[in-house]
Amino acid sequence: MYRNELIELQLNHRSIREFESRPVEEEKLEALIEVASHTATSMGLQQASIIRVTEPEKRRRIMEATTQEYVERAPELWIFLADTYRNTKICSEKGLETKVGLDMDHFFQGFTDAILMAQNVNLAIESMGMGAVFLGSIMNDQEEILETLELPAGTYPAVGMIFGYPAQSPQLKPRMPMKFRFFEDRYEAPESWVDALADYDAEMTEYYDLRDANRRVDCFTDQVVKKYAKHLENRMRIIEIAENNGFLPPEDCR
Amino acid sequence: MYRNELIELQLNHRSIREFESRPVEEEKLEALIEVASHTATSMGLQQASIIRVTEPEKRRRIMEATTQEYVERAPELWIFLADTYRNTKICSEKGLETKVGLDMDHFFQGFTDAILMAQNVNLAIESMGMGAVFLGSIMNDQEEILETLELPAGTYPAVGMIFGYPAQSPQLKPRMPMKFRFFEDRYEAPESWVDALADYDAEMTEYYDLRDANRRVDCFTDQVVKKYAKHLENRMRIIEIAENNGFLPPEDCR
Repeated sequence: MYRNELIELQLNHRSIREFESRPVEEEKLEALIEVASHTATSMGLQQASIIRVTEPEKRRRIMEATTQEYVERAPELWIFLADTYRNTKICSEKGLETKVGLDMDHFFQGFTDAILMAQNVNLAIESMGMGAVFLGSIMNDQEEILETLELPAGTYPAVGMIFGYPAQSPQLKPRMPMKFRFFEDRYEAPESWVDALADYDAEMTEYYDLRDANRRVDCFTDQVVKKYAKHLENRMRIIEIAENNGFLPPEDCR
Repeated sequence: MYRNELIELQLNHRSIREFESRPVEEEKLEALIEVASHTATSMGLQQASIIRVTEPEKRRRIMEATTQEYVERAPELWIFLADTYRNTKICSEKGLETKVGLDMDHFFQGFTDAILMAQNVNLAIESMGMGAVFLGSIMNDQEEILETLELPAGTYPAVGMIFGYPAQSPQLKPRMPMKFRFFEDRYEAPESWVDALADYDAEMTEYYDLRDANRRVDCFTDQVVKKYAKHLENRMRIIEIAENNGFLPPEDCR
């Protein structure tokens, strides 16, 4: 088995939601910002930005949008943005009035840049002895995030993250065997996913049982069914909300 | 300045497009697959998969879709997929016929999972003394990628990557100062981005000049103008193409 220090770190990834109250040192924050800056970026266009949220009122509003109370009190809260606003302004200053930065292509380029950056920063955080959790939950109320952070047209919150020194040490969560997620040359589905995942289901049940013996636990496939039982109206409106913040469908770009 | 081994690696990130012909060792591939599996995932739903492309004909077709000839001959070519197909099937097997996995919320969850995974794998590759480049260029002809990889409804190619042992050692590409990309509590734009980025523009011109003294070089802001001058029809149709592969707009989900 090939191992090195980074890979050990990656294989031990877990989400941390509760933190010590001590702040993150300035020099570590600076290093994380540098790491963000050197993350790969689509076409070199650097179409992602970060908002660090410190004001209590903004913290509270974002906590309410995510409905996760630990968001408000975490030492650090960063929101990673798709950002084509900057380059659109550059074009305008140079005499090119263009909607290109607002088309769906550049929306996805910016979104991708923001997620790459968030993952790179996440790993750097873990390498410093800290912990973090991604906040996909900012999607629960994207309009509230846009308004709270006063985001200009051509930007979009892609993912959030809280981090700091861990005040918890959760078990490593088992993952589905990669033979069901990694394929050669074509997608290959088993005849029955539920049968194929039976061992993994048992492993997940045991994991939850150990974590909290008093709580009713679901296996993975039951969790999927529960989580797939309901459309979340606000979350599935993402394209409409992005368009309300300046992005454009193809028909408005031709 | 805070530094550790991982952060040094991250600050030295560069794209590698030319590789030695020797293959990547089996044990390293296995470690990369494990790293992929332990990447953070939205709601624990593991909505991303990977296709490793080895068949010459598929390699050729993907190379043509990306229009980058180095794609065909790289030792490894992996395509990272948003994948809500698997969980949709699980629901169906368990008696829940649902379109939830096909809504835009889950499309973005899967897309995010795939990008997180790609960045995690990218860093692991670099930690092994290898190099890689992301292929955002698979977006140039998404329909060809879907067809070549025989991707089922509810999957979507989010990003590609080629990797192997580097046969080139490019200079580190300068990045825009983070004071223009990292903000506290609200987005802050300078009065003129072009003025604000003047030093960075000069740095980029020097970088290109050193790389190839015979080629006419652009500063960053001129590059932005050139790249933002034209909508790429295929690339901006991403939502339509995703819908052609099974994903659904909100009005079809209510």
